[in-house]
Amino acid sequence: MSDLFLALLHHPVLDKNGQIVTTAVTNMDIHDIARSARTFGVRRFFVVTPVRALRALALKIIEHWEVGYGSTYNATRKDALSLVAVESDLDGVLVAIERETGQRPQLVVTSARSGGSRTRFDALRGRLQQATEPHLLLFGTGWGLAPEVIERGDIHLEPVAGCTDYNHLSVRAAAAIILDRLCGAR
Amino acid sequence: MSDLFLALLHHPVLDKNGQIVTTAVTNMDIHDIARSARTFGVRRFFVVTPVRALRALALKIIEHWEVGYGSTYNATRKDALSLVAVESDLDGVLVAIERETGQRPQLVVTSARSGGSRTRFDALRGRLQQATEPHLLLFGTGWGLAPEVIERGDIHLEPVAGCTDYNHLSVRAAAAIILDRLCGAR
Repeated sequence: MSDLFLALLHHPVLDKNGQIVTTAVTNMDIHDIARSARTFGVRRFFVVTPVRALRALALKIIEHWEVGYGSTYNATRKDALSLVAVESDLDGVLVAIERETGQRPQLVVTSARSGGSRTRFDALRGRLQQATEPHLLLFGTGWGLAPEVIERGDIHLEPVAGCTDYNHLSVRAAAAIILDRLCGAR
Repeated sequence: MSDLFLALLHHPVLDKNGQIVTTAVTNMDIHDIARSARTFGVRRFFVVTPVRALRALALKIIEHWEVGYGSTYNATRKDALSLVAVESDLDGVLVAIERETGQRPQLVVTSARSGGSRTRFDALRGRLQQATEPHLLLFGTGWGLAPEVIERGDIHLEPVAGCTDYNHLSVRAAAAIILDRLCGAR
């Protein structure tokens, strides 16, 4: 079974006009994705932003629930937030995983857009069950990962298809669904 | 194919100590669940609270994105938020659905807790594809639906199982996963 890691990138990501931007770190992204990650056995969830003040904010949120007042108020949040780490860029995440596991992870990029050669969910699910090397599942905030990040992917995961032509899930909902498709009990 | 409706109840729900409470309506719940509902073909998403001021807040959020500044700023949000309706209690939701479809919906209750006789996801998925009567998928905020609501369910859906013993998904993540399991393209 492969060790699965998850990272939420705040830069470089696209805005609705296709420009490369840096998005703000939000409290809700950290909480929701940490709880989903904890549910589906993710080993670590990296919140990634080049902005020092936003890394400090993320660390403050984590600390509140891990050792501050929140840790006694709500132990299940403490449990989830203990998975969260903060890095300034994707390379920092890759180094952290290599340090933790001894191996460079396979980089799995996600996108709501179709096109190109994509790995199906069931294929990646099977691969994760067999693989010995770690895998890093990468999500973009805003309107998704910038092309320069997509290009670095070893595996390009197919988009989540609902049953309509609407493909604007929140990153929190998309991460939950993708983790369920890859790791949920069947 | 059954018409699927979704409701998010803010009362009566449980807090972490098992007491019945009324939770606050949050902006993020409305947005995230509306976008997931839109993706998976839900016909209407009801935000349900007995608190008049919070119903007014919900309507204000919807109006901002439907006809206010937000409608031109981000058309995909407008599209999702057009699904949202506001009601004061579960009975109001049932009446609204009966008025819209001519039929009383089957009430599907969700819970993160196991126990009792539960309908499996694949069984409900098959049923939705065959049924002619509408179905209402009911979610609770806080620590979940109060027993008095659970008891009213025609169908008790099994909990989402991850691959750990942790069962504290956010209601936004749980709703996304449940819609995907019931309606996602396979």
